[in-house]
Order: sequence, then C-alpha cells, then structure tokens
Amino acid sequence: MDRLVPARAADGSLKDERVAVEEPLQITLDGCPVAVVMRTPGHDDDLVRGFLVTEGILKSTAAIRRIDLDSKDNHALVFLADDAEFDPARLQRNLYSASSCGICGKASIDAILAGFAPLENARRFPAAALLGAPERLRAAQETFDTTGGLHAAALFDADGEMLALREDVGRHNAVDKLVGHALATGFAVEDTFLLVSGRVSFEIMQKALGARIPLVAAISAPSSLAVEFAVRSGQTLVGFLRPPRFNLYAGGLDRC
Amino acid sequence: MDRLVPARAADGSLKDERVAVEEPLQITLDGCPVAVVMRTPGHDDDLVRGFLVTEGILKSTAAIRRIDLDSKDNHALVFLADDAEFDPARLQRNLYSASSCGICGKASIDAILAGFAPLENARRFPAAALLGAPERLRAAQETFDTTGGLHAAALFDADGEMLALREDVGRHNAVDKLVGHALATGFAVEDTFLLVSGRVSFEIMQKALGARIPLVAAISAPSSLAVEFAVRSGQTLVGFLRPPRFNLYAGGLDRC
Repeated sequence: MDRLVPARAADGSLKDERVAVEEPLQITLDGCPVAVVMRTPGHDDDLVRGFLVTEGILKSTAAIRRIDLDSKDNHALVFLADDAEFDPARLQRNLYSASSCGICGKASIDAILAGFAPLENARRFPAAALLGAPERLRAAQETFDTTGGLHAAALFDADGEMLALREDVGRHNAVDKLVGHALATGFAVEDTFLLVSGRVSFEIMQKALGARIPLVAAISAPSSLAVEFAVRSGQTLVGFLRPPRFNLYAGGLDRC
Repeated sequence: MDRLVPARAADGSLKDERVAVEEPLQITLDGCPVAVVMRTPGHDDDLVRGFLVTEGILKSTAAIRRIDLDSKDNHALVFLADDAEFDPARLQRNLYSASSCGICGKASIDAILAGFAPLENARRFPAAALLGAPERLRAAQETFDTTGGLHAAALFDADGEMLALREDVGRHNAVDKLVGHALATGFAVEDTFLLVSGRVSFEIMQKALGARIPLVAAISAPSSLAVEFAVRSGQTLVGFLRPPRFNLYAGGLDRC
C-alpha cells in the first residue's frame, strides 16, 4: 500500500513520489489493550492473528472467536472463544523474565524457549529449493520497486514454490501477516521455509519458532543472537542467500 | 562489534563468518526498569543517554547523575540528580495517549508533538553538504563490510564534515548512541544533520526531534508517516540520498 506525496528533486523540480504507508494499529484482546503496532495498512486480520501467535500471547488461532477491524480508527478488536486461555502478562514477561539476575543473550533465549518448545526432527529442505527462492520473491514483490520502503517475507514449500508473500514497513509485521495468513488458510507451516528480504534478528527467529517454521533464510545477514537462537531451537538458519552462494549457520539442508 | 561463528557455504565447505553481535540491555532508572533494548554492545552509556532523551523520558542529560554499566549482566543502572524530574509513564503514554478515541497517524503525531515542541526557524543546510555525506558515511563504516548486519547513523555539520558515526544491529539504537554521544560531548546538535544508512520511519523522526536535530537524510525511503511528521515538526526530510540525486519531502535546503 503506497501513497503519493510531493517531493523536490536535487535539480529543484517538483514531482509526486510514492511512499509506503505507515499507520499505527491498536490491538485489543477482550477489551484489554495489548499492543500498538506501526504497520502498513492491509491484511490487518492476518497481522493480528499472526502477532498474537508469534508473540506467544495465544497458543493457537482456535482461541480467536472474531476479529472486528475498525480501519478508520486503526483499531483491531479481538474477541476470544469462551474456553480460550490467554496470558495478558506474556508480552511483559518476554521482556522481564530474566531481569532479576541480569540478562544476557542466553537468558533471553531461555525465556523464549520456556514459552515455545524447541523443534524436534524438524523438516529439512533441499538446497535447490532455497537457491530458487530469492528470484521468486523479487518477481512477486509488488510494491517494493515503487516505494523502496517495504520489507518482504514469503513462505515456500520443499519444491521451492512460493505459497504466500506479505510486505510491510516493519519486517516483524511482514512475518506476522504471513503467519496469520498461513494459519487462517490452514496450510502446513511446519513443512514450509521462510525467506525475508533483509536481515535476521533474534525476534524474527522467535516469531518463526512461535509459528513452528523449521527454516529461516535471509537475503542479508543474521545477528549473533539469531544464530545462537537457531542452534538452541532446532531451526535451520541460512543467511546471505544470494545464489549461487549462501551461508548455513545452524541446522542442515538436504543435498537433493 | 562482531563475532566469528562457523558456517557452511553452498559448496559444503566450512568456514568462520563474522556476524554482528546482538545482546539485550536492560535500562533501570532509579531502581525502576524502563526498557530492555536489543543492541550491539559498545557505547552503552551513549545508548542509554540518547534513549532516555529521544524517548522523552528525560528532558535533558543534566538530569543524569551517574550511569553504572554492568556489561557482564547487560544492565545499565541510571541514577538521577536530586532535583531531576522524570516521567516513568512516558513510554506507556507514547503508545496509548491517543487510544481512547481510536488512533491514526495524525493522533500519533499529535501525541509526540505534545511532548516535544516543533522546531521553529530550524537551521537549513546547503544541498552540497548533503551530497557529500553518503560517501563519507560509507568510508567511515568500520563493521558494515565485514558483517553486513549493522545500521549506521552519523551527524554532519553544515560544511558536510562528519562529526560522529555509530553503528548497531538496531537502527533506532544507532541513532540513540549517536545522540547520546553528541549530548555527552556537548556539541550543538541543532546545527547538525543526521544521515541514516537505511529507511526513515516515524520513530526515527521522533528521536531526531527529541534531540532537536533539524534535518534527517536517508539513503533509502521514508514512510508516509515520517513525511507527515516532518511537515508538522518543522524538520527537513531528505530521502533516497544517492548523489547526484535525492528527494526533498519536507522543509527546505539552501542553494549554497
């Protein structure tokens, strides 16, 4: 989603330029405000569904009875099923659980893994499927070329076919929209791999684990904590995926 | 700051790769925990100082009596001067102030501008100073080339001289470290412009305004809300600064 704004070029000429839209979205869960997310409007229901699961606030989308979107007011009202369990303190806990005795990368990972079990016998993917993915991502990106302001995230199957793509000004949002879409559509996320257009931080790995995605690949660099997280979580992590090259930082790939 | 991790290349060979270090830092203000920031270790005192000012938690660094860094535990303990005023609810308010009647980009900007006055008669800069800045930024970036994982932010004077540069896995942190350094060194931030290596979101504009930086330039794209913010705050905003081209989205430049 983009918008035209007037801009002046270096030679002084005035023209209209496309910029990616950024707006806040407030998420309220049974009347309790849980977060304000700065996002590109569009696919807001996917964003909300994905966010609640990848942050560990809900165990699954089965807990959601209804999402009312008030797009004018940028407000998403989530209503839970009667028997749903949710943990309003979870966001807070993610931040502070390790704080009593000092925090470090290891403690942060421990805190996340206490909420999301590591993967066991995670699906592996052939290197060939990964190597074809960046070109498919680029070909499918609708808005990137016109605004230069959006991050992309896409899910692929083991044959390297792209199943879905989402874009957003925030790279975490792109992942949440993608996960929310996958969960709503009902495809088997645990048999897919995630490709992100930029870098991989700790939080992207956490969100992928929350959705049970076994492999995360990135066009650009991982952080040290993303690597440590993947080693601990049982996920496969590939960085600098620039065919014919890539770096495998954790986990494994199939030869064919 | 980087670290070597083992990685396997596409041809199966094993080698050590440099990745940017990402670790949490907990910031505590007179015993009250205010935030956990995922950052690249180094210049932590600058980061803390900058964060507290650009988020509007402290009006100025004069309120800080001492910062004790416990690097082993990733903990920054900030002690305030006896007569210092601070607003522990500020972070919370930034998020929720507009929520009672729905939120939108305009309401978010209103909420920020209620805490930070817009600039009046802001310093203007010659286009020539901007055009030389990207090359100087690139030349000075120490770690980017080896890890590909760091964002950079730098301050320049009206002659286009680079005054300081900071890098971090988080682009907000790079700005906070830079602002914290400028405030500690005592140079006149209101006579400098900020160049960031990536995109400009709403939050980068907010942080720059908190530090009273009159112009923000970015190598890549601004978001729609960054443009709206700059129009309202009196800041100048330049995007896609790729000499000899750039786009001026708000404010003005001097011809010479």
